[in-house]
Amino acid sequence: MFSEKMDLRLPGPVQVPKEIQRAMLQSFDSPMMDYRNPQFQEVLQQTIQKAKMIFQTENLVIPLTSSGASALEAAIVNTVGKNDTIILCVIGYFGEYLQKITNHIGCNVVRIEAEWGEVIDPEDVRKALKEHPEAKAVFATHCETSTSALNPIQEIAAIVKETDALFLVDAVSSIVGAPLYMDEWGIDIVATGGQKALMLPPGLALITVSEKGWNVIDQQDCPSFYFDLSAYRKSLDAGVGTPYTPNIALVSGLLEACNMIERGGGMEQEFKRHAALRDMTRAGVRALGVELLVADEAASPTLTAVKLEEADEFRKLMRETFHIALGGGLGKVKNKIVRLGHMGYTDAADILKMFAAIELGLRQSGHDVELGAGVAAAQKQWLENPNC
Amino acid sequence: MFSEKMDLRLPGPVQVPKEIQRAMLQSFDSPMMDYRNPQFQEVLQQTIQKAKMIFQTENLVIPLTSSGASALEAAIVNTVGKNDTIILCVIGYFGEYLQKITNHIGCNVVRIEAEWGEVIDPEDVRKALKEHPEAKAVFATHCETSTSALNPIQEIAAIVKETDALFLVDAVSSIVGAPLYMDEWGIDIVATGGQKALMLPPGLALITVSEKGWNVIDQQDCPSFYFDLSAYRKSLDAGVGTPYTPNIALVSGLLEACNMIERGGGMEQEFKRHAALRDMTRAGVRALGVELLVADEAASPTLTAVKLEEADEFRKLMRETFHIALGGGLGKVKNKIVRLGHMGYTDAADILKMFAAIELGLRQSGHDVELGAGVAAAQKQWLENPNC
Repeated sequence: MFSEKMDLRLPGPVQVPKEIQRAMLQSFDSPMMDYRNPQFQEVLQQTIQKAKMIFQTENLVIPLTSSGASALEAAIVNTVGKNDTIILCVIGYFGEYLQKITNHIGCNVVRIEAEWGEVIDPEDVRKALKEHPEAKAVFATHCETSTSALNPIQEIAAIVKETDALFLVDAVSSIVGAPLYMDEWGIDIVATGGQKALMLPPGLALITVSEKGWNVIDQQDCPSFYFDLSAYRKSLDAGVGTPYTPNIALVSGLLEACNMIERGGGMEQEFKRHAALRDMTRAGVRALGVELLVADEAASPTLTAVKLEEADEFRKLMRETFHIALGGGLGKVKNKIVRLGHMGYTDAADILKMFAAIELGLRQSGHDVELGAGVAAAQKQWLENPNC
Repeated sequence: MFSEKMDLRLPGPVQVPKEIQRAMLQSFDSPMMDYRNPQFQEVLQQTIQKAKMIFQTENLVIPLTSSGASALEAAIVNTVGKNDTIILCVIGYFGEYLQKITNHIGCNVVRIEAEWGEVIDPEDVRKALKEHPEAKAVFATHCETSTSALNPIQEIAAIVKETDALFLVDAVSSIVGAPLYMDEWGIDIVATGGQKALMLPPGLALITVSEKGWNVIDQQDCPSFYFDLSAYRKSLDAGVGTPYTPNIALVSGLLEACNMIERGGGMEQEFKRHAALRDMTRAGVRALGVELLVADEAASPTLTAVKLEEADEFRKLMRETFHIALGGGLGKVKNKIVRLGHMGYTDAADILKMFAAIELGLRQSGHDVELGAGVAAAQKQWLENPNC
């Protein structure tokens, strides 16, 4: 009966709202929208303008028809070449991802690390930049999706800004959920994807570059043809759209996502809403006596990782019995944590539902939890801050 | 942000599953299916065959392209004429509905009543039949959707069966959820709609008639052209489809609904599943100290009515704050009850979510409820009977 019923409490993708489904469908119902016609060019221009708020920037926002990972690669290959030094801030699986990209290119990598679940000490970045004045860039993940820890991007930016190095940020799973002020904080490149708090189906990446960043890019030979950002800037600045066929449906969907965020009260409201969802979630987890992976001060507003033995068996039970999909552990925490997604199209009642089902799921897997306890704690938190 | 987000905990319509959405869409994507072509005739034949299980009957099941109300009218106008006597069992708003139809036709109506929230005493039917041997039919609502009370259809059927009168049943909001065995119990006409536990969007009615029923219909002049059931039987028996253009999308959707029910374990499993959802709901309501309208022995498996002052203000809060739609009171209980729907595409976690949100909603409207108490009681009930 319920083989296709599923609540996505994942760290992305999330439920795609009806409004976005309609906007996407309209672009390809019949006739399929032609990307060279004025109708789509108007959609594209509006989208690019509105998407600035996502990054809190005045810089050009470039949509890439590719997934989030490609924006991370684009940030690197446009600014750092073979044998160039790059400082990577690694606090989990997606930090290691940056290492894989830089390995592929052949960069000299300086790693700054923290335990999984913890975050980078900005002073380590200052030290690394002093020891490696040749470093062309520092790259940090904002929300480390594998652990739900949020790196102190503002503090790191303040340090990198004083040097010639660029500061690149992977904001794939933080964007819209966690406060990020590109211009005010002085970040040079922010790379993200649409399938998290932007509520789109996967397939669209976004990247935006500061003036300091473009100055470097202008001097750099980009080994990639498709991800050469100069080509995008040239084409978009000339008002002729993207240089290659854009994902028309997802661009149309992104415009509607921006409109939904505006109608809902704008970016500040999104930040508050996600923080409230996180606080409900953490209150619920604590009441169940289950251990949070990340300390309060570094907890992402978009997802929450929880330590649990035999996590994957528990997730299977949650999917099959209650039709709720939870995220699993990646890499070295596989089967040891559960990641609870609370980003994008998620409301307070969704969080309460998740806890009610988790309580039964834990009971069914032999844990001694008090029925209703997690729900009651999350409810209490909501009464204190009903901002979601 | 959430203006289009809504969980339907209504007494219908309910969430339409993806499987049914797809089946419907396939019938009119492109090209639109032609109802005279063999492809649709095959769908129609399969649907009519499979739909027998819905009524637990071997009789012909007739799909009407119209809403549930029309099947009630069709049951009457095909069997009872002006000045004929009909016994109506009235226990709420939809019982009164039958009175309106019979008034329109000009029948002599004998009413058997019970208080709203209570059910008919079958002995009253026996008495009425004795006092009115001229009665051509007895009509009873199975689940009275306005109160969530379930009439004792099996007992009434046993009494009517012994007479020449026909027994007509409105099974609109009970079908698939509450046990109903047309042939075994000896019911002559069952009328229902697709938008309740059959999980279809509104627009399709179903009606089925026993041999005893057809014998009466054959003698009757039906004042309606469109709802003259003889025309449907003739056309369907001849294998040329329905006499008038059928709702192709909804017939296609009904076939998929039948397939989903079969894949899920069949009708007996549906009965068990709905009973389990009802029992969770009643346990939750009791734990919140809110009064149930209907006693356990007469409680419908498809919805539960709960007494609440200023019910409509509460429902508004539930919609706007938690994006959950609850049913309101009709007729004389307007604003005095809330109706909690738990039919069709509803799982245990949906019920828990509803209670978690109801608890906060009651708090916000000034009621002193213990957070988590309703959820915990429903969870406990689920642990005792996890059949949903």
